[in-house]
Amino acid sequence: MNEKVLQKWTTQRYMTIPSLLLKHYKDLHLKEDELVILLHIQSFLDEGELFPTADLISERMNISSSLCSNMIGRLLKYQFVSIEKQCDDNGIIYEMLTLEPLWIKLIDVLKGEQIQQSEMSKQQEEG
Amino acid sequence: MNEKVLQKWTTQRYMTIPSLLLKHYKDLHLKEDELVILLHIQSFLDEGELFPTADLISERMNISSSLCSNMIGRLLKYQFVSIEKQCDDNGIIYEMLTLEPLWIKLIDVLKGEQIQQSEMSKQQEEG
Amino acid sequence: MNEKVLQKWTTQRYMTIPSLLLKHYKDLHLKEDELVILLHIQSFLDEGELFPTADLISERMNISSSLCSNMIGRLLKYQFVSIEKQCDDNGIIYEMLTLEPLWIKLIDVLKGEQIQQSEMSKQQEEG
Amino acid sequence: MNEKVLQKWTTQRYMTIPSLLLKHYKDLHLKEDELVILLHIQSFLDEGELFPTADLISERMNISSSLCSNMIGRLLKYQFVSIEKQCDDNGIIYEMLTLEPLWIKLIDVLKGEQIQQSEMSKQQEEG
Repeated sequence: MNEKVLQKWTTQRYMTIPSLLLKHYKDLHLKEDELVILLHIQSFLDEGELFPTADLISERMNISSSLCSNMIGRLLKYQFVSIEKQCDDNGIIYEMLTLEPLWIKLIDVLKGEQIQQSEMSKQQEEG
Repeated sequence: MNEKVLQKWTTQRYMTIPSLLLKHYKDLHLKEDELVILLHIQSFLDEGELFPTADLISERMNISSSLCSNMIGRLLKYQFVSIEKQCDDNGIIYEMLTLEPLWIKLIDVLKGEQIQQSEMSKQQEEG
Repeated sequence: MNEKVLQKWTTQRYMTIPSLLLKHYKDLHLKEDELVILLHIQSFLDEGELFPTADLISERMNISSSLCSNMIGRLLKYQFVSIEKQCDDNGIIYEMLTLEPLWIKLIDVLKGEQIQQSEMSKQQEEG
Repeated sequence: MNEKVLQKWTTQRYMTIPSLLLKHYKDLHLKEDELVILLHIQSFLDEGELFPTADLISERMNISSSLCSNMIGRLLKYQFVSIEKQCDDNGIIYEMLTLEPLWIKLIDVLKGEQIQQSEMSKQQEEG
């Protein structure tokens, strides 16, 4: 492996995703290609591309830009992603995508599990 | 957010994905649902489940176990995943899945890019 | 780079550290070598070594086992780490270290920041 | 936990570090506080701060800016970090810190291990 390739590999960015996302995206009624779109969004955000377009995302995917656009629309509608207004140091307002609603949904799944477990142990104690 | 949920969130495992995988899986002719299977395999390996079955993986996906099994077969055939023999401390041999061939393919993509770039700069110099 | 080295590099485990920990460990009155001990504990937990000893940890560090043991004692005393009782599938109870108290402390720092910010913006509005 | 704190926690950046670094920094003759400086540099690079100063780094540490400056000097001298010239889209040249030499050193440790292992198995076969 030559030096340039080695350099590119070792200094590349790594994406970090909560293992709970992989375990529970199905419970959130997300399809596999929707999950991948969410990962692409996270990846662009990590790179500093704060409002990745359907064009940008679909270039890395096996789907057309217009299908990608529809799917992002659905992710926005069902609140897996949202658009956030931010203000930069010069007071200029800009918009960015955020996956915060996805994390909230995932935490809600955990809360649901938590309630079920408490109820099950209560029933067992009472049983 | 109650304590148990907070605990589950903060102490969960995080998966680490090379950003180059997200950028280049399409160049490797991987579909989105195949990418997701690879991520599930990585996730199970991280958890210490060294030979996750199609049953296990498909439970977390929107596909049937038999379709998942076919897809894993294809990933093995085209060498995105392979089966590795390991020997434990007691000399007992066991098999595990490994994504090593995927990383090698990804590095090959980088090498290809690298060659193209050198050739382009050579042509520019000669041009 | 030969194949075995490449394999070891690409298939290695990656540790995931919340960036908030690096930003705020000083606010939690943690010294650098205490931070490193906490990272080692996290690393061992990731590997499935659930109760890493001072011997194990100090082998990877530039400190003696007894100094390491004292430092872990201090981290336990001031609740950056705690010992958790778990029960395995066969009903056998075992103990493990957990960094959960560290994450709680870190979240408390965020809460403090949050309160300060709200108060500052209130004062600005009132001012 | 209120919403703002939850948001800050879930959408925070995560740092990814090779587990091999934690296992082998001692073999590279790095002290714990030097390791932490390297982690801070990585963290700033991830945030897009490409040439973090000793002032910036020491603010997050329990050491003075001048001591931090000395330590960074040593890390540069012994080539754990280096300064790289980059060219932006407008042709303007800027400098950034890179941890690439650290990764190369780490890979060299793996190569050394690899050689030792081959020799040991050769001796065992011959023995």
